[in-house]
Amino acid sequence: MLSTMQDVPLTVTRILEHGTRVHGDATVTTWTGEGEPLRRTFREVGERSVRLAHALRDGLGVVGDQRVATLMWNNSDHVEAYLAVPAMGAVLHTLNLRLPAEQLAWIVGHAADRVVIVSGSVLPLLAPLLPRLDSVEHVVVSGPADLSVLEGCRPQVHDYEQLLAGHPGDHFDWPELDERQAAALCYTSGTTGEPKGVLYSHRSIYLHAMEVNAAASFGLTPAEICLPVVPMFHVNAWGLPHAAFMAGTSMLMPDRFLQPAPLADMIVAERPTVSAGVPTIWAGLLAELDARPRDMSSLRTVISGGSACPPALMRGFEERHGVRLVQAWGMTETSPLGSVAYPPVGVTDEEAWPYRVSQGRLPASVEFRLTGPGGEFLPWDGKSAGELEVRGPWIAAAYYGGAGAEPVRPDDKFSPDGWLRTGDVGTMTPDGFLTLTDRAKDVIKSGGEWISSVELENHLMAHPEVAEAAVVAVPDEKWGERPLAAVVLRDGAEVEYEVLRAFLGERVARWQLPERWTRIASVPKTSVGKFDKKVLRRLYAEGSLQVSVLG
Amino acid sequence: MLSTMQDVPLTVTRILEHGTRVHGDATVTTWTGEGEPLRRTFREVGERSVRLAHALRDGLGVVGDQRVATLMWNNSDHVEAYLAVPAMGAVLHTLNLRLPAEQLAWIVGHAADRVVIVSGSVLPLLAPLLPRLDSVEHVVVSGPADLSVLEGCRPQVHDYEQLLAGHPGDHFDWPELDERQAAALCYTSGTTGEPKGVLYSHRSIYLHAMEVNAAASFGLTPAEICLPVVPMFHVNAWGLPHAAFMAGTSMLMPDRFLQPAPLADMIVAERPTVSAGVPTIWAGLLAELDARPRDMSSLRTVISGGSACPPALMRGFEERHGVRLVQAWGMTETSPLGSVAYPPVGVTDEEAWPYRVSQGRLPASVEFRLTGPGGEFLPWDGKSAGELEVRGPWIAAAYYGGAGAEPVRPDDKFSPDGWLRTGDVGTMTPDGFLTLTDRAKDVIKSGGEWISSVELENHLMAHPEVAEAAVVAVPDEKWGERPLAAVVLRDGAEVEYEVLRAFLGERVARWQLPERWTRIASVPKTSVGKFDKKVLRRLYAEGSLQVSVLG
Repeated sequence: MLSTMQDVPLTVTRILEHGTRVHGDATVTTWTGEGEPLRRTFREVGERSVRLAHALRDGLGVVGDQRVATLMWNNSDHVEAYLAVPAMGAVLHTLNLRLPAEQLAWIVGHAADRVVIVSGSVLPLLAPLLPRLDSVEHVVVSGPADLSVLEGCRPQVHDYEQLLAGHPGDHFDWPELDERQAAALCYTSGTTGEPKGVLYSHRSIYLHAMEVNAAASFGLTPAEICLPVVPMFHVNAWGLPHAAFMAGTSMLMPDRFLQPAPLADMIVAERPTVSAGVPTIWAGLLAELDARPRDMSSLRTVISGGSACPPALMRGFEERHGVRLVQAWGMTETSPLGSVAYPPVGVTDEEAWPYRVSQGRLPASVEFRLTGPGGEFLPWDGKSAGELEVRGPWIAAAYYGGAGAEPVRPDDKFSPDGWLRTGDVGTMTPDGFLTLTDRAKDVIKSGGEWISSVELENHLMAHPEVAEAAVVAVPDEKWGERPLAAVVLRDGAEVEYEVLRAFLGERVARWQLPERWTRIASVPKTSVGKFDKKVLRRLYAEGSLQVSVLG
Repeated sequence: MLSTMQDVPLTVTRILEHGTRVHGDATVTTWTGEGEPLRRTFREVGERSVRLAHALRDGLGVVGDQRVATLMWNNSDHVEAYLAVPAMGAVLHTLNLRLPAEQLAWIVGHAADRVVIVSGSVLPLLAPLLPRLDSVEHVVVSGPADLSVLEGCRPQVHDYEQLLAGHPGDHFDWPELDERQAAALCYTSGTTGEPKGVLYSHRSIYLHAMEVNAAASFGLTPAEICLPVVPMFHVNAWGLPHAAFMAGTSMLMPDRFLQPAPLADMIVAERPTVSAGVPTIWAGLLAELDARPRDMSSLRTVISGGSACPPALMRGFEERHGVRLVQAWGMTETSPLGSVAYPPVGVTDEEAWPYRVSQGRLPASVEFRLTGPGGEFLPWDGKSAGELEVRGPWIAAAYYGGAGAEPVRPDDKFSPDGWLRTGDVGTMTPDGFLTLTDRAKDVIKSGGEWISSVELENHLMAHPEVAEAAVVAVPDEKWGERPLAAVVLRDGAEVEYEVLRAFLGERVARWQLPERWTRIASVPKTSVGKFDKKVLRRLYAEGSLQVSVLG
């Protein structure tokens, strides 16, 4: 028997209309570096979203579920695209402006993007690609730009402001949408293979925004001010713009000013209460604050995700600057909110640390299971390590197959019963805390035992002379694989490998200690700031690293 | 183009499994009066829910979407029914134990309830009805009871504990459910006509629970302890049991101990952080605390809903006992969360009051519109008063038609385009705050103007000598209708009507002041504690009230 409740779809249109009407006085503030920040109310953003939808449909001829790409920093124009494009029934495709040109061109072609909205400062990156971007008919330039780089290009060029000015802002006849319809597209910048597109639905974005706003997650309310440092091209800025517009939470947008000093300045000036970004950002900010302390007291919660947050970084922020970092876990395929590391009730501050440095606890809408090497499901005993698989209404079931093509479901990414295979190896506690130890491919298989590279890295990075450390598996005749420790020392620091190994020896079992050590200038990283271990493994295989072997 | 996200239904099963597994150490504590409270962990509640599902299906033969009724206080057995009955695919029908016997019998017959789970202390209420309850095959008695009252009754009688003990608690093969399937049934105890059943879906309960847990609503987290004083037979205790089980929030259940003194005692002993109930409960608790102050410092937020909360009550709690009452609005047809009255940011404590005494601001999933007398939609200008209509995924589209019958959609309850007509008259501010002034039928139409009975009542109840006041429309030859003020004075208080009218005269326009006054011992109330104005109007029409007419 079906119920007699209203059948109202969960759509981005609802978020747009609600935020505009009920929270019209909330603001999106975009940092501009030197000058006064650009402030727009939700009312203005809503009105401009209506103009943008008219411009795209009536002006540029976008119909149906065509893809409208953005190659933009975090700013209020980008928020308008976040709202208008899905609400009009089209698909918002956020392009990662840190991708290599080749990948960017491949992705635009794969998605058959018809329009690209681009931040003026990024134009020099896009311009040389345009001759190859056959699907692109219109380039819309947001913000100040040197348009000369576009001279003679094939697509039509529009100025964002002029385009909006030519269309009405009072009303758009938003279509009735199926909540399962595609709303946004984001490609994973995996370290292997071609990029894979995750096609979010209105339903997944809406439910995810509700979860972001849960008190037990990020807890956005009209009383908060949210600073999404995580780029809007990186898993929809972890859902924050949609969640904030839904909750009536004012946003502070850093635009291109992601360096530690301007980030510290904008926090002092605008007093955000919640922020979110990758550990690399927080490491840079911590160094800046240690050098030039600033008032960070507005920050209630800073979410760290994207890769494991070194405990030393969390402690440093908390002890020296009074800022609480909260670790969260997710990936492009999980929208991304998978788990948030709030400790359970009733533990002391010190007892809380093992929970806080875990990947966190899952909300009701997300299901986890651990799969062992033989495909068996492992118990949640805090010890059994298996591949994490995930299920839920904002978790991908397949990848976008490209314009007009069927979705693709590679076996190494999706289990036969439809769960997402994360490629992450970890353990679960009986009370639902996830601890990831490694990427499945980064686990060091030494003599029939698994050694966690992440655990070794975290311990190494807790040493005062170590700035960064990466541990990778290298072939070993006797043990199959053994760990190689690659360390980046702090400026001016000097320390013997023996000292570091002794430091590690106080923290992990003897058989896990690396024999092979190398010193590098920096850890190679992917375009989104994750350690790129495949580069390290290659450098080692080529003999390009100067490796010391301890006895 | 459909997205490629997983198609995972939003079901009560998910809430049950998540709470049991991830928040197994959270507790449901049931107050027992004198002795030690009964404490069960979510793990135990989950295991017992599995037993209950087996007992209902394998023991009592409940299949498909048959109705399983509860006639119970707020306690942990009731929570088990909240979880097990919907998860097994059946429909939980919560019976209001304050209804007149006639209505109760009518409702059980209309729903064709097959099983009734009844609190032992309520058995004397159910027993005499049983011969008339043809659909009921099994009565399951929870808690201590005098079973002799059931001797010779037709349905089979079971003890809840014995029934559970005979079935396994380790696993139930929960069916795959469509999220739009019926999960729970609750009849409105309207003051006119037959009771009407609202049939909640798994989807509506799930989404509503997510909204309850939003930081901007009730903000449940594992760190909170929730005390639902609102009965579990009253709109699913405003969604709190499902929301708390979803969030891992421990619950304190008052069982039948709803009197002011035991409520105060259980708050002192168990230190809940969030509570919810109707103003009548809080008025009683305030009087108790004024007489015998107790430590209420654990309470972060107390939600008041069901009828307008007198501002004097809110101020009294806050100023004398440090407890913040937050008004929320909803009805059986709205699950019930419609709006919550947190003031906007940037206002002072005093400026916040007009917002706090409003019905509040709507969340993104709920849409409001005001319809004028001519069917036109009115602006949100804080002045234009119209009938509130509501749309959203947890709002009713129709009433349950009874076993095997089609749903019913009376025109006075649902607009042609599917919105719920609330029967409430009010205004909306530009920033989405709802202020209800009257039930549509309680508005006083005086000489072409509307007079708000609620406004007059609130002002009267702010007078120190007035305990309660109700204002109703009575016929008037010259003006069509005029207000009649019926006041209940505090014990031992004496005050002239002229004094009360002068008090009102400082607060409302002169033409709104009542000429007719009467003193009554108490305001007649419905079974859920709302003012029953139809009784007052009838008493006036019969000439049973002693009315003074002021010049």
